[in-house]
Amino acid sequence: MKETYIKEFRPTELHNPVLIEGLPGLGLVGKIAIRYLVRQLKAEKFAYLYSPHFPYFVLVNKKGSVRLLRGAFYFWKNPAGVNDLILFSGDSQSQTIEGQYEIADKMLEFAKDHNVLTIVTIGGYRVETEAKPKVYVAATSPDILGKAVSAGAVVSRSGSPIVGTAGLILGLSRFKKIGALCLLGETRGYLPDPMAASSVLEVLKAEINFDLDLTGLKEDIARAEKMVQRLQTIEEKRALQAEETRKEEDKKTTYIS
Amino acid sequence: MKETYIKEFRPTELHNPVLIEGLPGLGLVGKIAIRYLVRQLKAEKFAYLYSPHFPYFVLVNKKGSVRLLRGAFYFWKNPAGVNDLILFSGDSQSQTIEGQYEIADKMLEFAKDHNVLTIVTIGGYRVETEAKPKVYVAATSPDILGKAVSAGAVVSRSGSPIVGTAGLILGLSRFKKIGALCLLGETRGYLPDPMAASSVLEVLKAEINFDLDLTGLKEDIARAEKMVQRLQTIEEKRALQAEETRKEEDKKTTYIS
Amino acid sequence: MKETYIKEFRPTELHNPVLIEGLPGLGLVGKIAIRYLVRQLKAEKFAYLYSPHFPYFVLVNKKGSVRLLRGAFYFWKNPAGVNDLILFSGDSQSQTIEGQYEIADKMLEFAKDHNVLTIVTIGGYRVETEAKPKVYVAATSPDILGKAVSAGAVVSRSGSPIVGTAGLILGLSRFKKIGALCLLGETRGYLPDPMAASSVLEVLKAEINFDLDLTGLKEDIARAEKMVQRLQTIEEKRALQAEETRKEEDKKTTYIS
Amino acid sequence: MKETYIKEFRPTELHNPVLIEGLPGLGLVGKIAIRYLVRQLKAEKFAYLYSPHFPYFVLVNKKGSVRLLRGAFYFWKNPAGVNDLILFSGDSQSQTIEGQYEIADKMLEFAKDHNVLTIVTIGGYRVETEAKPKVYVAATSPDILGKAVSAGAVVSRSGSPIVGTAGLILGLSRFKKIGALCLLGETRGYLPDPMAASSVLEVLKAEINFDLDLTGLKEDIARAEKMVQRLQTIEEKRALQAEETRKEEDKKTTYIS
Repeated sequence: MKETYIKEFRPTELHNPVLIEGLPGLGLVGKIAIRYLVRQLKAEKFAYLYSPHFPYFVLVNKKGSVRLLRGAFYFWKNPAGVNDLILFSGDSQSQTIEGQYEIADKMLEFAKDHNVLTIVTIGGYRVETEAKPKVYVAATSPDILGKAVSAGAVVSRSGSPIVGTAGLILGLSRFKKIGALCLLGETRGYLPDPMAASSVLEVLKAEINFDLDLTGLKEDIARAEKMVQRLQTIEEKRALQAEETRKEEDKKTTYIS
Repeated sequence: MKETYIKEFRPTELHNPVLIEGLPGLGLVGKIAIRYLVRQLKAEKFAYLYSPHFPYFVLVNKKGSVRLLRGAFYFWKNPAGVNDLILFSGDSQSQTIEGQYEIADKMLEFAKDHNVLTIVTIGGYRVETEAKPKVYVAATSPDILGKAVSAGAVVSRSGSPIVGTAGLILGLSRFKKIGALCLLGETRGYLPDPMAASSVLEVLKAEINFDLDLTGLKEDIARAEKMVQRLQTIEEKRALQAEETRKEEDKKTTYIS
Repeated sequence: MKETYIKEFRPTELHNPVLIEGLPGLGLVGKIAIRYLVRQLKAEKFAYLYSPHFPYFVLVNKKGSVRLLRGAFYFWKNPAGVNDLILFSGDSQSQTIEGQYEIADKMLEFAKDHNVLTIVTIGGYRVETEAKPKVYVAATSPDILGKAVSAGAVVSRSGSPIVGTAGLILGLSRFKKIGALCLLGETRGYLPDPMAASSVLEVLKAEINFDLDLTGLKEDIARAEKMVQRLQTIEEKRALQAEETRKEEDKKTTYIS
Repeated sequence: MKETYIKEFRPTELHNPVLIEGLPGLGLVGKIAIRYLVRQLKAEKFAYLYSPHFPYFVLVNKKGSVRLLRGAFYFWKNPAGVNDLILFSGDSQSQTIEGQYEIADKMLEFAKDHNVLTIVTIGGYRVETEAKPKVYVAATSPDILGKAVSAGAVVSRSGSPIVGTAGLILGLSRFKKIGALCLLGETRGYLPDPMAASSVLEVLKAEINFDLDLTGLKEDIARAEKMVQRLQTIEEKRALQAEETRKEEDKKTTYIS
């Protein structure tokens, strides 16, 4: 394997497909969103992406078998008949700069081969907030952008960067004449954040007009919030203790001088 | 995109063009100089340089659109008819060593294709000074060097390095039989430095003999000087406080021993 | 040398060979196991693997000669006639990500050329234990896995990573239609661990059904245990001293405040 | 420039040439030795080696001109007629692993094209000593090794590494059927060490049987020794002061508790 390649093990005819990408990143927003879509829509795996720019280890699977790190493509045939979906997620981002560009290129070639007209990439946007996560949007055309804004997304601030595959796919898509938009959910970023993923999926539903029940994410959100609270309690205790120690030391100092 | 490439989206006939390069670096001297030239001369964009050796993110543009990191070429038709100008700046230097050489190579090929006979590269030279920034010059021939010296530049000291694209273009230009010089403006380096850019542009005017009004930079310079003063005040306060603390501790120590 | 290549300096006909790989890694488990097999079976060297992804130094050999870092292939003709063996070890893992994939690829090509049907890779699994090291197994098919489990190995936990050549060979073997399993011996990892190697070799004997006397490793194991004990004694003394120092300081502090 | 290449700007017929290499490394032993040979023998430059794996800056030359980092080949026609010499030194080692292998490969191709039968590489061997530096030798054949030992060199210990171009040339030379030896002079390594270079040159003279006056190095050696003494004085003062400070603090502590 000298370069990134995509192996389609189950060739499939798709109708006006939209490709939705979500690799690991801040708050795992993209990965959680895609995983939920796959589960909820019962989407089916049909291709893998392998790359020598992924980390150099393999993962043990269920029952002691082994697999390379990879990305996986799933398809979902839309019964309403407007747009079928191709969903993409994976284990890792590229570990090298050149690999980042190569993987985005290969995904765009794959999209072109499947007559994809629009790509949605999903990621996280780091912010310290406890409010409902906002969704930021950037896109390759005003039309695509407008739809997301109507669905409640906020236009990304000029000059802000979009890092990794989610960004490079947008940057490179114009060379393939494919429209693309990126949805970034607000997240603190250091813990898996299903709430941010949920916000993104709400916008996505409206953007590409398909039906999706989001109640299945509620349990994950409750669990994540408990985890955040537990960490905050620990942090507050630690801060209190540090304060005590400081005061003790101040007293000693005063006594001596 | 496997390697750096230049896309000329608006083919243009130019007359004896001189190429002037200024990528981000110390004090952003090169970038500020090129930006000012583009604005002042109303130069027009005609080509982009893309590279998989740039950082792996994209930037959100105005109105939520997105673009890859890139370099941009502008042209200016000189009404006086001696030399037209090609101006080049961009978002970033290459992130890999091989990329640094590749980008300089591609720029030289582009210059050759446009019959460029002279290239000027612009950068910063780190120094702690409050005087008017000097301009250092190095060049591929005594003729080119002499002109810059007549215009007030100082010959670079033997053995000093010129880092990045500004340097490699000079080093590689002899393989293409293109003359080149590098102008380095003195700068503290950690803040954008329009004053250093202004010094460089003064030399440049004389070197390639064209008319340029530099008063437009005065406002930027005033703003930058205020920023430097503010930082100095902060730094002085911090030093004073550190001194106080040290004295307090000396007193304690004396008391104890 | 632009890429990894294998030089077979003594072409050899082998009968249903099994390839066993053990490069340096945690506790040097793989390297110790292969070295013991080579010595015990009097296996003979027949090929070298060179790579520009190995570290950039050479080693002085006996008598002042010099050699590149490399991997070495040995063969053993099994007198019982079931499976001949190819043994592989070397000086180093690849130093780059792409090199890791390239080396595993080249080894699989070499295996294919020699009609290898099964590959065993050997490594260490980090754990703090004083008990007899367990052996974890992962494999590309339930059949191969089952044999190792019958021989006392434990199935690797789902989701655990196998790093480096030992892992990538398993991950990439399916593209060459070669069966593969990985045996990981429990080890603390920071010292050469012949006990872990011995546990692995016991499973290996049963897996590929050949005769091997393991008593030769006992001396190495005794020496390694002595080394561990010596280090523990040093560590305990150090901990005791640190405790003393802490108490002394507590006393002082109490007195002052 | 996509890869390392050598530009021979003055093609030259040489008689049984020996190639002697000395790039920057520990104590600059190789570089100092080659520079002295070039000066003393009045050797003449005839080729440059350029590489995109060198650092990405250029150097200002005398009179404000500029050059890429590079290696340079010099030739010396031996009036005694046994072996002409090719001398090689340069600004830098490769900055990447692959580049290290590529540069050594290109140098061997160049040597083959010039019918070089023996290559000598020169480097430093780190050791804390004040005695006259010993010279360690490793070689690709017992014959070549033997001559250096007769001239006073010590055979390198088995298992010791030789890092960088000096090592890789030896490791790769067997693929080109060129004999090679490496001479390593003992050096503390952190300062330019003309004394180590002098020791190496003494062995070299005997090894390839040519006349060389080493008195010219005496002044450099005297200067280097003075520098070492000055640094030692500074270091001793610093140690003394640290000791004082420690005693003062001990007194305070005693007083308090």
